[in-house]
Amino acid sequence: MSETPPDRGATNGKRSGKPKWAIARDRARRAGPETVWLFGLHAVRDALMNPRRRRHRLIVTPNAAAKLAEAIAVAGIDPEITDPRRFPAPLDPQSVHQGAALETEPLDWGGLADRCAPAATGPAPIVVLLDRVTDPHNVGAILRSAEVFGARAVIAPRHHAAPETGALAKAASGALERQPYLRVRNLGDAMQELAAMGYVLVGLDGAGEAELGPLLAAESGRPLALVLGSEGIGLRQRTRALCGSLARITAGSDFASLNVSNAAAVALYAASMSAASPKNAV
Amino acid sequence: MSETPPDRGATNGKRSGKPKWAIARDRARRAGPETVWLFGLHAVRDALMNPRRRRHRLIVTPNAAAKLAEAIAVAGIDPEITDPRRFPAPLDPQSVHQGAALETEPLDWGGLADRCAPAATGPAPIVVLLDRVTDPHNVGAILRSAEVFGARAVIAPRHHAAPETGALAKAASGALERQPYLRVRNLGDAMQELAAMGYVLVGLDGAGEAELGPLLAAESGRPLALVLGSEGIGLRQRTRALCGSLARITAGSDFASLNVSNAAAVALYAASMSAASPKNAV
Repeated sequence: MSETPPDRGATNGKRSGKPKWAIARDRARRAGPETVWLFGLHAVRDALMNPRRRRHRLIVTPNAAAKLAEAIAVAGIDPEITDPRRFPAPLDPQSVHQGAALETEPLDWGGLADRCAPAATGPAPIVVLLDRVTDPHNVGAILRSAEVFGARAVIAPRHHAAPETGALAKAASGALERQPYLRVRNLGDAMQELAAMGYVLVGLDGAGEAELGPLLAAESGRPLALVLGSEGIGLRQRTRALCGSLARITAGSDFASLNVSNAAAVALYAASMSAASPKNAV
Repeated sequence: MSETPPDRGATNGKRSGKPKWAIARDRARRAGPETVWLFGLHAVRDALMNPRRRRHRLIVTPNAAAKLAEAIAVAGIDPEITDPRRFPAPLDPQSVHQGAALETEPLDWGGLADRCAPAATGPAPIVVLLDRVTDPHNVGAILRSAEVFGARAVIAPRHHAAPETGALAKAASGALERQPYLRVRNLGDAMQELAAMGYVLVGLDGAGEAELGPLLAAESGRPLALVLGSEGIGLRQRTRALCGSLARITAGSDFASLNVSNAAAVALYAASMSAASPKNAV
């Protein structure tokens, strides 16, 4: 298995001889609250339309300004219009920014307790935990799937996770603005907190002893945390030990494995099917 | 919805002022059978180890040659060792080639009739059809999922589909060498051919009238063709008309939709569950 390397987005420095954009970025970080740069017309428009976004700077070419005119008006932000040949946002030169970049703070989705506590009534909540999944395409796709299947939150460690930046926003196709993406200090501690709230913790693992469908059917009605590891490494040892059970998606072949976002989508679908069916139907 | 734009891989030219690698590529194309360039250590190793690959040129740096020594010996190919600073393969300069590039013909998976005809005994076959899905990351992930769930083939039109090149091979994580990926002249004709073989054609569509799980359960035991459209556009009109039924994965929200590879994985999982369960269990 191999994970696509993280794209060289706005928060990815080089090992030595930092380029200008990285120096500008680091300076910006030291100066105030942690910010990320979103880029691309779609991601920037979504973030401008989201009243919960705290925005710092909007840099646009005249062309992009025209395309984003409505969103800029809604956001009430004063854009910095720039020459496309001297686009001054601290982005990796390879970023397909389409002439629009927005510096913004990550959305504040509250704490684990507020966001994930099961309610006394209504359907049992589902959350997704990501153990060092760093590829922004995968995390973006997982946010989309989490939104489609109504997951309460996607939870990842503050470090060793894909930052809420350009490529992730693009892959999330708008879900970044709507789907809670909680960054926690320590994933193991978050798992223990969820267990204490009554969550069943199910780790996805090709060598898992249980099959996913029957396992989820047996636990149907209880709050569910689906735990996925990075490709290549899988679940780390402590993460694995904190799971209540490990499940595999299929009997599997000798070679094949699902991409992590595909595994997440299948697990969310299986969970939603179990929730919809009476316990003994599958 | 938006699809990640295809990466600028080995078969993607520029609109004007063609770069040298594109000119070299086009010249190579005119000269002989259609070839593709695979790059990156993992993809090149997989293709060297595959006895079914017709290989033309292997270009490697001394470093990559050492890492691929075993695969090069197995393939019995004479590598062109090159200076890493003057890597002469006709790849987009942004390709992460890791010092290894292999010119090869696409694998010959035979025709639709040979590959997809249902057998008299054994489980009913499943195939996946892709209607203009051009993002190589998505197609690569779909090949992985197709292999995991034992699909007979992934079928796409010869044009308007992701070529079997670098980024696709990387996302497929080895499945490109093992999972049949058939390129057909016309997708509609292929659909009619499959229908004549007894396949049920189910299109995935957010506005579909049926829910996927119950629909597949009702058709369980019959050969199944899952049809997916590109993100943004979805299924084209003729494709849609040729589907026996259109199914949605969830009731869905107003905004959210699954990434196409995630939708394919969910549909393949749902089909495998239906095949495993008796008809009236879901």
